[in-house]
This record gives sequence, structure tokens and C-alpha cells, in this order.
Amino acid sequence: MINKLIAKIKETGAPIVVGLDPMMKYIPEQIKKKAFAEYGETLEGAAEAVFQYNKEIVDHIYDLVPAVKPQIAMYEQFGIPGLVAFKRTVDYCKEKGLVVIGDVKRGDIGSTSEAYAVGHLGKVQVGSHSYYGFDEDFATVNPYLGSDGIKPFIKVCQEEKKGLFILVKTSNPSSGEFQDRKLADADNRPLYEIVGEQVARWGEEHMGDDYSYIGAVVGATYPEMGKTLRKIMPKSYILVPGYGAQGGKGADLVHFFNEDGLGAIINSSRGIIAAYQQEKYEAYGEANFAEASRKAVEDMKADIEQALNNR
Amino acid sequence: MINKLIAKIKETGAPIVVGLDPMMKYIPEQIKKKAFAEYGETLEGAAEAVFQYNKEIVDHIYDLVPAVKPQIAMYEQFGIPGLVAFKRTVDYCKEKGLVVIGDVKRGDIGSTSEAYAVGHLGKVQVGSHSYYGFDEDFATVNPYLGSDGIKPFIKVCQEEKKGLFILVKTSNPSSGEFQDRKLADADNRPLYEIVGEQVARWGEEHMGDDYSYIGAVVGATYPEMGKTLRKIMPKSYILVPGYGAQGGKGADLVHFFNEDGLGAIINSSRGIIAAYQQEKYEAYGEANFAEASRKAVEDMKADIEQALNNR
Repeated sequence: MINKLIAKIKETGAPIVVGLDPMMKYIPEQIKKKAFAEYGETLEGAAEAVFQYNKEIVDHIYDLVPAVKPQIAMYEQFGIPGLVAFKRTVDYCKEKGLVVIGDVKRGDIGSTSEAYAVGHLGKVQVGSHSYYGFDEDFATVNPYLGSDGIKPFIKVCQEEKKGLFILVKTSNPSSGEFQDRKLADADNRPLYEIVGEQVARWGEEHMGDDYSYIGAVVGATYPEMGKTLRKIMPKSYILVPGYGAQGGKGADLVHFFNEDGLGAIINSSRGIIAAYQQEKYEAYGEANFAEASRKAVEDMKADIEQALNNR
Repeated sequence: MINKLIAKIKETGAPIVVGLDPMMKYIPEQIKKKAFAEYGETLEGAAEAVFQYNKEIVDHIYDLVPAVKPQIAMYEQFGIPGLVAFKRTVDYCKEKGLVVIGDVKRGDIGSTSEAYAVGHLGKVQVGSHSYYGFDEDFATVNPYLGSDGIKPFIKVCQEEKKGLFILVKTSNPSSGEFQDRKLADADNRPLYEIVGEQVARWGEEHMGDDYSYIGAVVGATYPEMGKTLRKIMPKSYILVPGYGAQGGKGADLVHFFNEDGLGAIINSSRGIIAAYQQEKYEAYGEANFAEASRKAVEDMKADIEQALNNR
């Protein structure tokens, strides 16, 4: 799957993943109105609106980008109907040929991590049959519990030729509270570097052609740390959130890429899916929200291209 | 809800939470057979077996213990039908008067943590209506992303009078890989102590009568660390996994309690729900698995009582 992701990045020329993080306030009135007319102002109605919103965006961007990243929390908040919309979104995106990164940030001890891995990336055994639960291509994982929380995910990834992005340095303002602490038993280097080293080691257990199936999450909002982490994990793809709405700019991104122009995939969520709400794209109007999303992808692609050409 | 939990611990005399972590290999054949006859060897069949298994155990233990802790991974592995079984389990346990701790170990950046908090503990807005998604009483949360990942959970807990257990020192063998690292910028103290201090501070923002709504997870497998953490977080309830099957013993548990005999709640999952598979309880047989679970709870209660009396 890492090979497929890289092939699609080369084919589209866009190291971009679109975050499908649908909040109700982003969804145009016409979509909500139709969904509520059918299902009422219920969890089912919200879930239907979420799926139709995603579908229209995906229909307008699937040929431009290699991948999407649905954030499961935005679906889970609507309970079971929301998770049905998550699954429908995963399936629809795969039908359109997109690589799907499930942003689930799961992580637990051994047998429990195994259950998450099976549910999101693998197959679960029921009697003499086996079934895929959610069947994303990649999942994001939290490393706080250490190797025995990560290894069961790697095992399932090996079986299924799927991959992970492990949280190393997250994009949020308070990510440094624990992640940046300097470790006395590691020459005063920060925790995120040590986690990054471990990601590189875990990555060796499941290599694709040029890059590992085991990648890392490093926020665009911390470009200098990204530069260091790029060197620590040369074979790990870096999933970079925080571009756009969270403040990361094109020029900040160059350090996340290797010299081959590969090694990073930049996420934008709000900046793409709710582009029509920005001043820059307001001429599209609510009715043409998905066209605005397409234009925002094209602009983001140009911004990254320019930054990479200028380095 | 922390006041209710403490009242129920006093009433039952059992600082015990039963982990409802149903794996297929624990579920007696007669339950699987019936569920598969109705739904086939499908995800729906597995989910039905899981719920019926939980229900029979809950029917046999609900008067002995204050709380249950379903581990959502064990349901999520069966996709949507599994999560329906999770929700049915939460609802059924609440009907029986049990406090429900959703072991979900979620955690993300601001708005995403808010969506998880809303989905598991609060209400989500849909048009002019609002709905509970999963509606547990407590949730477990991962602290790796720092304060802005935790605060949205605390906000929802304040609105709903619900609570959290934040991972501090987990019970698994490799938990020390990151959690035990010594911090140069904190007098070489280990990371888990610094996380514990932060839990204590977060806890001040949402106090119940005697204890905070914001608790911590500390593994029974690390009793000496538990002793230190007990002092660092005097007002935080500690949820203690790792008793029984993972190796923790009654005598290891005493340090997790305050002198008032409160402050800790001990989890056992496999040791209770699959008791009938242990040599000690095999006389019950598969048919009477839930009676074996009841006896295992009584034995666990006696073990903890004895340990506390001997301290």
C-alpha cells in the first residue's frame, strides 16, 4: 500500500491528502436540508448529510490527489449512524481509487491493539469465516504505550500489506508539553526524537520498495523539528497535518521531504473541504462548495510545488 | 458521577470494575451456536454472541460491583455490528445501575478531542435537537497530545457531570519505553510522574465532593510507581488494570489506595469474564460460566479486602 501511495503521488504530482473531517457547520444548507427532510434532525439525518457532503467533495477531487484521511472522531460523535457514514466514506473513496488513511489514533496494550488493528486494517475471524470491519489502507496510531502496543498493528499490516502513521510530533500548540521533554537518559534529546528513532526501527520490520509501510505524523507547525525528524526516519513517510487552517505554510513544508521529492504527504482538512467558507473562494457560493474544494486543492498543489522548486 | 462511583464502591464494599472485553475464544459454545443459528457466522452473529455473553455475566454480577469497563476495541474489531453490541452493552449496564467506564483511550487535538468527548460522554447537536452517541459515564483518554487534547474532554465532563481516567503508567511490559524516560528538565524524574502531576492539575478543574472527576490509569503491575503516583495525585481516582491475568496480585494493590480506603478501583477482565476457563473454576463448566464469574468477583473482593486489612 505504501508503494501504491507513492505511485499515486507521482502520478498526480500532488503529495496531498484531503482530510475528510466533516463538521456540521461546514456542510452546506442544501445538503443538510435534503438529509433532514428524509431522516429528520436525527443522528441518521446528520450521518446522511455527512456522507453526501463527503461524496460530492470526493467526486470533485479524486483525480487530483492520491489519498484522503477521514478523521473518525467527526463521525463517532454521531454514534452508530456516524460510524456507518465513516464506513460508507471509506468504501466510496476506495471505489474511486483513493488511498484511505483512517485517522483513528488508536493504541492500547497487546491483545487490545490487535483487536483495533484487525478492525481497521485486517480481518476478524467469526467461526469459519473472516470479515473486514472498516478496511482502511492506513491507520494513525498513538505510541504512548510502547512497542507491545505497536507490534500487533505491524503484524496485521504485514499480513495485509497495509501501513501505519505513528504520532511523533503532533501539530497542536500544546504538543510540546510531553513530546518536547528533554530526556536525561538520551543526551537531553527531546522525547519526539526518541519516538522517531523507534518509528524508524519499527519501520525496518515492514519495508516497501523504497519506503517503509510504517510512517510518522509530524505537524507542519513545527518545521525545524520536521527537519531533524526527516533525518532520523529517512525511510518513513511523514504525514504532515497542520497546513493551512492550523497555520502551516508551503515554505514550512520543504524540510519534510527527502531530496527525491518524496517522503512526505501533506494534509489539509478544513482548508479544502470548507474552502467555500473562506473569503478567497467565496465567489463559488454554497451551491458550488465542491468546485471551491477542487480549486483549493489545485492552489495547495501549486503552493507546495513552488516551495519545493525554491528550495 | 465520581460521587456516584464512590457511593457504589462503599455500598458494595468492592473497589472493583469488571472489564467487559469479550473475545470470541471466551464465549461459551452454547451462546455462539444460538447467535450463529440466528444470524449466521457473520459480524452480526458475532456481535449478538458478544452481547448475550455480556448480558449473562452482568446479570450475575451487577449487585456485587459498582462498575464495568467495556474495552471498545473488542467490539470495534467486528465493525459496525460490533459497535452496536458495544452500545447495547453500555445501555444494558446502565439499566442495571452500573457505572460504565468506556475504555476507549481516545485523544487528539482540540476540535477532534471535542468530537470524541461529545460522542462518548456528551450530546451532539443536530439542527435544533441534541443526542447522546454512546453515553458512557467515564472514558479513558491518552495524554500524548498534551493539554489542548485533554481540555475539550474536561469541558464536556463539566457539562455532563462525567469523568475521565487519563493514561499515566500503563500495565503492559513495554510501557516504560517512553513513560519511564527520565526528564532532564524535571530533575531526572520519569515522564509518568510529570503526566501524573498534570492529571492532578487538570483534576482541580472538575472536583467532586472528595475526589476529582479526572482520574488516572496506573497498572497494577507497577506497584512501586503506583505508590509514588498515589501521592502525586491525592485527589484523583486511580483505575488499576493488570490484576489477575496480567500478573498483578492483591498485595500489589494496597499502595494504590489512600488511607481512607478509597482512591482506587481495580479492574479485572479475563480473570472474571472467562473465569470458567481457569482450572480454579472449571467445576462450573461452560454452561455455568456466569456463576463462575460471580464466584471470581467474590474471590477478588476477598483478596483485596485481605490485602487492605493486612497493610
